[in-house]
Amino acid sequence: MTDTTPRPRFRLFVDAPLSAGIAVALSRDQTHYLASVMRAEVGEMALLFNGRDGEWLARVAALAKAGAALVPERQTRPQAAEPDLWLLAAPLKKDRTDLVVEKAAELGVSRLWPVFTRRTNAGRVNAERLRAHLVEAAEQCERLTIAELAEPAPLDKVLASWPAGRLLLFLDEGGGGPPLAQVLNGLAPGPLALLVGPEGGFDAEERRMIAARPFARAVGLGPRILRAETAAIAALAVVQALAGDWGLGPRACG
Amino acid sequence: MTDTTPRPRFRLFVDAPLSAGIAVALSRDQTHYLASVMRAEVGEMALLFNGRDGEWLARVAALAKAGAALVPERQTRPQAAEPDLWLLAAPLKKDRTDLVVEKAAELGVSRLWPVFTRRTNAGRVNAERLRAHLVEAAEQCERLTIAELAEPAPLDKVLASWPAGRLLLFLDEGGGGPPLAQVLNGLAPGPLALLVGPEGGFDAEERRMIAARPFARAVGLGPRILRAETAAIAALAVVQALAGDWGLGPRACG
Repeated sequence: MTDTTPRPRFRLFVDAPLSAGIAVALSRDQTHYLASVMRAEVGEMALLFNGRDGEWLARVAALAKAGAALVPERQTRPQAAEPDLWLLAAPLKKDRTDLVVEKAAELGVSRLWPVFTRRTNAGRVNAERLRAHLVEAAEQCERLTIAELAEPAPLDKVLASWPAGRLLLFLDEGGGGPPLAQVLNGLAPGPLALLVGPEGGFDAEERRMIAARPFARAVGLGPRILRAETAAIAALAVVQALAGDWGLGPRACG
Repeated sequence: MTDTTPRPRFRLFVDAPLSAGIAVALSRDQTHYLASVMRAEVGEMALLFNGRDGEWLARVAALAKAGAALVPERQTRPQAAEPDLWLLAAPLKKDRTDLVVEKAAELGVSRLWPVFTRRTNAGRVNAERLRAHLVEAAEQCERLTIAELAEPAPLDKVLASWPAGRLLLFLDEGGGGPPLAQVLNGLAPGPLALLVGPEGGFDAEERRMIAARPFARAVGLGPRILRAETAAIAALAVVQALAGDWGLGPRACG
């Protein structure tokens, strides 16, 4: 916001449509957060977004322990898309997975896709927890969308039904690939995905299977051995800086 | 290693000189790790480095609860420097600071410098803990050096004694700076430093004070609001990818 209104203390994602004067109800958790944690008051302003209608300045119209209603007053930002960038990541230990999810949201991925590999230790993914992290990070980092959480799936099935036209950059801890920046600088614009393996990496057969796909390209991330979550975060930053929405020339993944 | 020897389970930083046949004693913590946690045995191989003599393959010659001796047999990598890249970062909450330290080591910083700013909540820094993180991350990511932990200091004092010839890229959450990649692409080779503020950012006067320095340049990290630790990690990745040792053309911070 460019005016002098103090910045609202709250920025919340809601499912409901947003338009001027039409009240929106908050979820139970959001109500608890506003009423009990942050001790908001009726009349206080908040920012709302729903991934479709942009961002709105809204006034707390009613607030009780059991529910809250906010009334949008004016749009502060029109809706805009994040870059079309997917992150395929093998689940890690709980705190490392949470870190990847939070940072992927901050760094603007449009879709997060948990993939199971041979060396993936986690047998399942707590989708509800991951989605909550995606929402919370989006609220904090001023995204206008929530990253889509795709259905977790084995890597071979994901590769078998890969969509035409999307390049898959495979973070090859084996060191075989050219530097990520070099590959990005040579790309034509188009949708991208990054693939990062589990701790311990892909096994040799998996690496061959990935490399054999015409849509996959191995990329390198320098001479040090990065942990899986570091590789994911570092690669997302480089992609956004060079081919995404950090403002450098034509966008490869716009 | 390019031969078929199985990769050792241990890679340890030691202070002692490394040369063939001269035994090296481990610290008490390292001894405990080898003997009790990993149940190493006499005759097992480990990798050692000390930041000066490269990396060595060494054999466990003696191992008891109270001490261990390893004998270097052959050098596996000659000593090499990391890029000359500093990270100046305001301390965050404990876990977020630990994350920055670990990732800074993985991403190859040569010096980590905790700086206190007006909005820094932490009044002190546990240097011993930070240094332990720098060592552990270096062991894991196959660095040949340990990042130097500089004496924590107030930002104004750090800026007042800034060394000639080193450019300070200031991660400006205010959004005023040109994109980081654009700035990096226009740089002549030379030593670099990154400066990232605390949660809540620098205050207006600090930002003016930084921007007024001839060695400082504000840079932007895209349209989303990154948390402080995300900004630090993301910027380090982009610097290494474009101007560091990830293998793309001339090095600005080599």
